[in-house]
Amino acid sequence: MAELDLHYLTELAAQLRVDSVRAAAAAGSGHPTSSMSAADLMAVLFAGHLRYDFDRPDRPANDQLIFSKGHASPLLYSLYKACGVIDDEELLSFRRRGSRLEGHPTPRLPWVDVATGSLGQGLPVGVGVAMAGRLARLPYRVWVLCGDSELAEGSIWEAAEHAGCEGLDRLTAIVDVNRLGQRGPTRHGWDTGAYARRFGAFGWHTIEIDGHDPVQIDQALTDAANPRGRPTVILARTRKGEGAPEVEDREGAHGKALRDPDKAIDELGGTRDLRITVHEPPADVPRRFEDGPMSLPAYQVGEKVATRTAYGAALAALGQARGDVVALDGEVADSTKTEEFGKALPERFFEMYIAEQQLVAAAVGLRIRGWTPYAATFAAFLTRAHDFIRMAAVSRASIRLVGSHAGVSIGEDGPSQMGLEDLAMLRTVHGSTVLYPCDGNQAAALTVEMADVDGVAYLRTTRGDTPVIYPPGERFPVGGSRVLRHSPDDRATILAAGVTVHEALAAADDLAADGIPVGVIDLYSVKPVDSAALIEAATTTGNLVTVEDHRLEGGLGDAVMDAVSELGPRVVKLAVTDLPGSATPREQLADAGIDRHAIAEAVKRSL
Amino acid sequence: MAELDLHYLTELAAQLRVDSVRAAAAAGSGHPTSSMSAADLMAVLFAGHLRYDFDRPDRPANDQLIFSKGHASPLLYSLYKACGVIDDEELLSFRRRGSRLEGHPTPRLPWVDVATGSLGQGLPVGVGVAMAGRLARLPYRVWVLCGDSELAEGSIWEAAEHAGCEGLDRLTAIVDVNRLGQRGPTRHGWDTGAYARRFGAFGWHTIEIDGHDPVQIDQALTDAANPRGRPTVILARTRKGEGAPEVEDREGAHGKALRDPDKAIDELGGTRDLRITVHEPPADVPRRFEDGPMSLPAYQVGEKVATRTAYGAALAALGQARGDVVALDGEVADSTKTEEFGKALPERFFEMYIAEQQLVAAAVGLRIRGWTPYAATFAAFLTRAHDFIRMAAVSRASIRLVGSHAGVSIGEDGPSQMGLEDLAMLRTVHGSTVLYPCDGNQAAALTVEMADVDGVAYLRTTRGDTPVIYPPGERFPVGGSRVLRHSPDDRATILAAGVTVHEALAAADDLAADGIPVGVIDLYSVKPVDSAALIEAATTTGNLVTVEDHRLEGGLGDAVMDAVSELGPRVVKLAVTDLPGSATPREQLADAGIDRHAIAEAVKRSL
Repeated sequence: MAELDLHYLTELAAQLRVDSVRAAAAAGSGHPTSSMSAADLMAVLFAGHLRYDFDRPDRPANDQLIFSKGHASPLLYSLYKACGVIDDEELLSFRRRGSRLEGHPTPRLPWVDVATGSLGQGLPVGVGVAMAGRLARLPYRVWVLCGDSELAEGSIWEAAEHAGCEGLDRLTAIVDVNRLGQRGPTRHGWDTGAYARRFGAFGWHTIEIDGHDPVQIDQALTDAANPRGRPTVILARTRKGEGAPEVEDREGAHGKALRDPDKAIDELGGTRDLRITVHEPPADVPRRFEDGPMSLPAYQVGEKVATRTAYGAALAALGQARGDVVALDGEVADSTKTEEFGKALPERFFEMYIAEQQLVAAAVGLRIRGWTPYAATFAAFLTRAHDFIRMAAVSRASIRLVGSHAGVSIGEDGPSQMGLEDLAMLRTVHGSTVLYPCDGNQAAALTVEMADVDGVAYLRTTRGDTPVIYPPGERFPVGGSRVLRHSPDDRATILAAGVTVHEALAAADDLAADGIPVGVIDLYSVKPVDSAALIEAATTTGNLVTVEDHRLEGGLGDAVMDAVSELGPRVVKLAVTDLPGSATPREQLADAGIDRHAIAEAVKRSL
Repeated sequence: MAELDLHYLTELAAQLRVDSVRAAAAAGSGHPTSSMSAADLMAVLFAGHLRYDFDRPDRPANDQLIFSKGHASPLLYSLYKACGVIDDEELLSFRRRGSRLEGHPTPRLPWVDVATGSLGQGLPVGVGVAMAGRLARLPYRVWVLCGDSELAEGSIWEAAEHAGCEGLDRLTAIVDVNRLGQRGPTRHGWDTGAYARRFGAFGWHTIEIDGHDPVQIDQALTDAANPRGRPTVILARTRKGEGAPEVEDREGAHGKALRDPDKAIDELGGTRDLRITVHEPPADVPRRFEDGPMSLPAYQVGEKVATRTAYGAALAALGQARGDVVALDGEVADSTKTEEFGKALPERFFEMYIAEQQLVAAAVGLRIRGWTPYAATFAAFLTRAHDFIRMAAVSRASIRLVGSHAGVSIGEDGPSQMGLEDLAMLRTVHGSTVLYPCDGNQAAALTVEMADVDGVAYLRTTRGDTPVIYPPGERFPVGGSRVLRHSPDDRATILAAGVTVHEALAAADDLAADGIPVGVIDLYSVKPVDSAALIEAATTTGNLVTVEDHRLEGGLGDAVMDAVSELGPRVVKLAVTDLPGSATPREQLADAGIDRHAIAEAVKRSL
């Protein structure tokens, strides 16, 4: 507290409350009361503890601040104003069309690296940022402002487990325990001990304080900075809407502008124009990634290899070549084959155990600190992280995801293990790229190709071995496709990707033997899809048959239909429509109606 | 232990191990080692504690057993054999095409109510079953066999929190702490204390035992049955592959048949044919739901009301009429409007706080015990439970989901709160029904209509008020649609649902004024979609324009294309393609290109 002034901090917190009330009043909506409870916490953090260069938000030494309770955006924006990086006019543009000050913070603001607003995500992402700091040997701290309601999310406890077990002691969660959720009281109210017991059990250092007492806050933040091999959680008892009797500690005041903002502003002592001088971070040490030559795996045409195996080998090769590449896996690296990377480059491999939300959040956290993360698990289990993937897109975080064991072709394990919804899930993600290789060399090439793609990029791999059809060394650009069979007499074109490419080729052979020439296109880039090739096929044969080891909805077939919908060709979609059980891979493909025979039949029916 | 015989239990456990090895050997795959570690636990449970009528699996008084570690299916099936409900031949059909004994348990078996295999789901579903028992005042117990690896899943801690805080003392988690995950050692190995501290902090009674000692197991299960107002977790130290030196406590032996099963069977003492006599449950008390008259809300044409509001009122009315209806909400009942049900019928309303995985899992648990659950949160946040929804379909659990605040039309809150992927997510779910009402009376009718639909049913609601266009009392069957504008001269047909119906009607008015007659169809049933109506429209106008407040991929437009793809009409899809920010609802619709003006433009361009 030596360098801080109690009066200044109290006045600053009041200013932040007033500005939060003003911003919400100008917008006619927003979350002023959730901002007011945390004003003292953030006033002390910004004035005394945060080390951040607002002029250079990309400085590696900058601390990371994440508002996991993203709805407290008026407080964040009021802090920015106090720091002098936005002016009062911009503050009052809150929630207006075109304003950078959105309802929940997004990277449209240069000082926001991760979008929040879906609760329980900021802390897991903060864990990823702390992992990034340890990997880069950077001394920055990670401060995550959490709400008490969001501690009910399982993802918080995935984060608690990872940070606790890994001893990420540069991570501090500051929990604004204002006892009121959106609808009413939280489960534990002001019982900060309930939270302390939980975090303590997960290995965290816990501090319980009065969140409106700057002295206690300052002591807690100072204590949190002590290296002790454990992350710290500061559990701060606060009052929602603190300082404005209209709303203070009252139910029914969540997520609304105040009825009488002027009265509240008066009660809070009126507007002020205090400034915050945030501490500079230490001098940057130039970052150097250790790069090397790349030696991609090469498979001979006709050889059989699983695309997951090729991905694993290619990722290890990519990691050798590029020091910025890191890999994460959800305790299935022996199945996804990420283990190849782990063996080659253990320092850049992260075992995230069976916690897919934290898996993806860690990738986001590593990404926003400059690493190029690949995160893998079974395609089916990426659904566990759907909300995190969705939000990664809002964060403009270019993470790479890899889903193995896609489709019914996994065989005996049954439907719980089959990724049958992943193409649909990943295609709906804003700005995403979806790749689905059919052979080893293509899988290896796409593993490298996706490294620098903007946005969320997804690689779908197959469990079983498939024949190599492309020679080593070919390139497969995002948005491309490969014509595998074509003649001027083609009566239909089969569109396939991954395991169904091989079924389509076999069907084309069978049909050719029956005197029916058909084209076959390998649509390895499911999104963006090669519209030009599809339009060409639609125009020439006018008869498209799509086949995919995925559900009928939202996958490859829909991508094709979407590309050609304004032309109006006939499209027949083959996909998984029933609920599979256990069976061999070949039986599964037959039962689902996506094997060579089903394709040939569909083509004949379509003529 | 009085009524149990130690020698019998030891022999029975050995038999279960032998049969697990045999089943996996016959299949050539499976998880024998994960079965062997838990054999003693399940032998004692089945022989001495479980109360279950295998002849009548639907008896309300039956205990519930859930293998949350579903990969231990060989153990479960070996238990069934020992109980005499499957024979040895069926046991050896494990993982074969057509067998009921799938790689992971599913309800193809009459004694399996919930499919598992996606880890971390069995315990949350067990919480739902325990909630159902308390609600029905039934004394059954819920036993959930968990693996240690899956305790890394956040969903486990959502379950721990709910069960602990609610004091669900008829729930017992039995954790098979065999220290080895799929890829290698778990985080905590045999440190059962680490798990005990965590569960203890969440309010559970904890017991740590040697999981291969029948006496300790029996004492623990007896202790778990003592009513103490807290759920119990039994943390049992075990060895994976116990009893077979080839695999016992060894890495690299996960998920594989043994190399030398005959040797292992010898080492385990050979095959046996012991039987288990499972205790009968207490006599059933006939269940009576309190039913009453239904008084649905009625809105006058032209009135403005939000579909979420109509859903809330209708659900409360449905709950009054039907005693089997229960409602759950993810701490946003004031926004989803489930609060109307909560006010009217507090005993049947469950506040699940911000824990969407547990929200959906609880619905599944309630459903498999005969209740009709409606679970609601923001449409965006249902993505958090994607894997649970996917698995609910594998479980054939007819749960009802309601997602509010769909689309950009929520306005200022921004993209984190906008459900823009929910139609795609729910459409891909096997056997699902997806409904999207556009006005209050339709929303009320569909809320009731969905009550008895088979499978996962989803209702998508809108935040803002929309004009009532249908008189009260009309029916809207699943799979239907409504033609709102039609003339023989129509030059295009606009397909819309929800908020875009009103934009489509306005566009049709604008186009009519410009001398361009167009049809408008309300596709309130997005899945199943009204193919007949779409084919009719495709055939007559040959020019379809779809418009939806959802991403371009996987939603209404794709449903339309799918229905008409083999006819080949031209289809123009209007949907959200950019990343929205904050703006008013009207600005959002305009910016996304899905408002009346954008629709009219698209129709003109399409001509």
